[in-house]
Amino acid sequence: MQKAIAEFIGTFTLVLFGCGAAVIAGPSIAGAGTVGVLGIAFSFGLAIVAMAYAIGPISGCHVNPAVSLGALIAGRMNVGDFITYVIAQVAGAIVGALVLFLIMKGKASGWDGGMGTNGWGPGYLGEYNVTSAFIFEVVATFIFLVVILGVTHKLVPHHFAGLAIGLTLIMIHIVGINVTGVSVNPARSLGPALFAGGAALSQLWLFIVAPFIGAALAGFVYRAGILYHGER
Amino acid sequence: MQKAIAEFIGTFTLVLFGCGAAVIAGPSIAGAGTVGVLGIAFSFGLAIVAMAYAIGPISGCHVNPAVSLGALIAGRMNVGDFITYVIAQVAGAIVGALVLFLIMKGKASGWDGGMGTNGWGPGYLGEYNVTSAFIFEVVATFIFLVVILGVTHKLVPHHFAGLAIGLTLIMIHIVGINVTGVSVNPARSLGPALFAGGAALSQLWLFIVAPFIGAALAGFVYRAGILYHGER
Amino acid sequence: MQKAIAEFIGTFTLVLFGCGAAVIAGPSIAGAGTVGVLGIAFSFGLAIVAMAYAIGPISGCHVNPAVSLGALIAGRMNVGDFITYVIAQVAGAIVGALVLFLIMKGKASGWDGGMGTNGWGPGYLGEYNVTSAFIFEVVATFIFLVVILGVTHKLVPHHFAGLAIGLTLIMIHIVGINVTGVSVNPARSLGPALFAGGAALSQLWLFIVAPFIGAALAGFVYRAGILYHGER
Amino acid sequence: MQKAIAEFIGTFTLVLFGCGAAVIAGPSIAGAGTVGVLGIAFSFGLAIVAMAYAIGPISGCHVNPAVSLGALIAGRMNVGDFITYVIAQVAGAIVGALVLFLIMKGKASGWDGGMGTNGWGPGYLGEYNVTSAFIFEVVATFIFLVVILGVTHKLVPHHFAGLAIGLTLIMIHIVGINVTGVSVNPARSLGPALFAGGAALSQLWLFIVAPFIGAALAGFVYRAGILYHGER
Repeated sequence: MQKAIAEFIGTFTLVLFGCGAAVIAGPSIAGAGTVGVLGIAFSFGLAIVAMAYAIGPISGCHVNPAVSLGALIAGRMNVGDFITYVIAQVAGAIVGALVLFLIMKGKASGWDGGMGTNGWGPGYLGEYNVTSAFIFEVVATFIFLVVILGVTHKLVPHHFAGLAIGLTLIMIHIVGINVTGVSVNPARSLGPALFAGGAALSQLWLFIVAPFIGAALAGFVYRAGILYHGER
Repeated sequence: MQKAIAEFIGTFTLVLFGCGAAVIAGPSIAGAGTVGVLGIAFSFGLAIVAMAYAIGPISGCHVNPAVSLGALIAGRMNVGDFITYVIAQVAGAIVGALVLFLIMKGKASGWDGGMGTNGWGPGYLGEYNVTSAFIFEVVATFIFLVVILGVTHKLVPHHFAGLAIGLTLIMIHIVGINVTGVSVNPARSLGPALFAGGAALSQLWLFIVAPFIGAALAGFVYRAGILYHGER
Repeated sequence: MQKAIAEFIGTFTLVLFGCGAAVIAGPSIAGAGTVGVLGIAFSFGLAIVAMAYAIGPISGCHVNPAVSLGALIAGRMNVGDFITYVIAQVAGAIVGALVLFLIMKGKASGWDGGMGTNGWGPGYLGEYNVTSAFIFEVVATFIFLVVILGVTHKLVPHHFAGLAIGLTLIMIHIVGINVTGVSVNPARSLGPALFAGGAALSQLWLFIVAPFIGAALAGFVYRAGILYHGER
Repeated sequence: MQKAIAEFIGTFTLVLFGCGAAVIAGPSIAGAGTVGVLGIAFSFGLAIVAMAYAIGPISGCHVNPAVSLGALIAGRMNVGDFITYVIAQVAGAIVGALVLFLIMKGKASGWDGGMGTNGWGPGYLGEYNVTSAFIFEVVATFIFLVVILGVTHKLVPHHFAGLAIGLTLIMIHIVGINVTGVSVNPARSLGPALFAGGAALSQLWLFIVAPFIGAALAGFVYRAGILYHGER
């Protein structure tokens, strides 16, 4: 139960502060000050750093169904825990989006209803097509999982894992926000989409399928011993 | 006495360099260069990193009455130390604001008298209402304390605590500066408010009440063993 | 073979996310949001942090022929491994540039065909001449290698190497992007140049020669025991 | 001799990349892209991180006469080493400024001759007066030395010192660039001033006197055991 609570709090924090940076302080917000794409990238990545050190010792701080899938395929997690983790992650993402929605309801002006959702195509940020979006999400999630499964490998134990993983997520957001808004995490895409509706819901499938493919590929790399020997 | 001096220096540094970034290099300052919301966020967070490693071994580097309250409720601090800490923190915040005020007195032009105070409502940054401000401060302080009490838990001892806590505060500021200017720390709100007066003083109550509520909730989570076993 | 795969993945990531930041979110890109020179600097540096912790235990995470040359001259690597590493690095850089090219093909508008290539002279960023470019690349690579060979020295073993090296690369990019776009890495220059052609190819020689000179100088400093005793 | 070489390289790097960020990519530079005040702050601070891990094990990475003075007063350094260190630091700063000058000579247009010098008064950045400049430099150097002497104290040995000190310097620059350009380091002020001349030379005294006062105060705090027991 502690693990489920930890995953709930972690994913709640990722969505509230990651998407919250985009919605409250993003480039398209009218108001006193914006943090730009770089600031949004930092908020997503530092949410992972924060949670990795706070709840990592409890649950491993997956806070992402794709990470849990990669761990499952790499042989580091069983199916029962996988299901528990995904349920807690999705619930945390929805409640995180709800709190963000409640905060935005109290803004006097200048909110366009955006919730930091992912997407692609005409009208969405840099206007990349679905192929670019798919390639980016698969490759970025693959690299993200290569880092996660590498730095937490039993042969290289140390305390840098949380920092390295969070900084990797900053890098991914710096590059990918213009392409898809960056998911690499189905729960992070689902929560805000439920409150935004429209294209965010109709395009949600890609942000479930592509991250799962990228994560599964990385899980296989580690399970097969392509990078490290001695997995399992 | 060393603990009180350490808390005084730490809170002094947080207010002088955190609020100082907003006042000297914030988006609304006329002058040679601004650091934007992201730069202000970094200055607050890096002040915590600096102090955590400099004075953390002496006092634990709370530099925040809400952090001390969370530690008290979690059972990690006694009431006498709590009172000593809060007095030293408030004194440090006031002197930090005083030094900032003296520096600003020597600026030839372009100072609007702002002191980096917290607030809400029409005319304050993103113009959020009191409900949004209250929700944000409670939730942000809760998450801040979950991280602080987690990374300093006796079951997970390592040297990353100061870095993780400071980076968490950067994340909170990236999101929250537009909402309330971000307090999560009654002393940080009090010091500048004494020099700014007006709305900063009349709205000060929220930045005492809300952080204390968020911190108390997190303290209870740890005392009750909801996240970690073995507290106390 | 694991070492070659690790170097391939590492250099792939550096080029895709480093050059990708410049191409997808750089100052000259029309679109929703840019990360500026600072964001590009972070993306290059954090790619090194990510890979250092993910694949560092396998191959040492050189992901740069100049780094491998410095290690060779310092006496930390043999010639056979050097050749294997460089082949893997060049292959990774080319495939990284290819994936970036494929993503950009799906952008509806606003792509000028740039691939984040290095250069100098009229029309290239800050318009520095070839002498400035050469001085910068030699000195920056020398300092980069002084850090790399220092933090990985056998007399000072700890886990900070990856972080320190990545943060050094951020510093180098903050300063040097306006001068040359920053190479300090022949593979990073080669990959994008193959897809961009033109000046990027005709000026490629400098980004092979100058980094190799700077790296060789640093390798000699360590081999000769000028900074540390006990090398070799 | 290794210590002197290390201090030379370290101060060379700090001036070339710290002042270089201001001169090559600062807000007042015409060209392709600027990093702003935040980027300059990062470049100075990350130079310290880079050098702390590269040469810290050799010389302690003072790269700053004020830091050496603080160490001297705290009783951690003898007078002979102090003199050697200061000579090496000043030499490194001058050569670092020379290389920066040579790079700028090759810029086709848009260089105003600035060298990243410190200063105050009408026409200098935020236009603060000499009193503000003096207060800022004394207080900032004091806090900088409190961190340096704290994180390197023999009672709290760990590898975070270099990171904490560098991040502290970022914080100081975020706040202080508009006030004085930030010295807290007489060598860093001297090197560029020799090439810029004018006000940079006539105002140089403050950036020697004020940092030395702040550093001496911090050295006394540690020598007297005000923060930690057991010094000396």
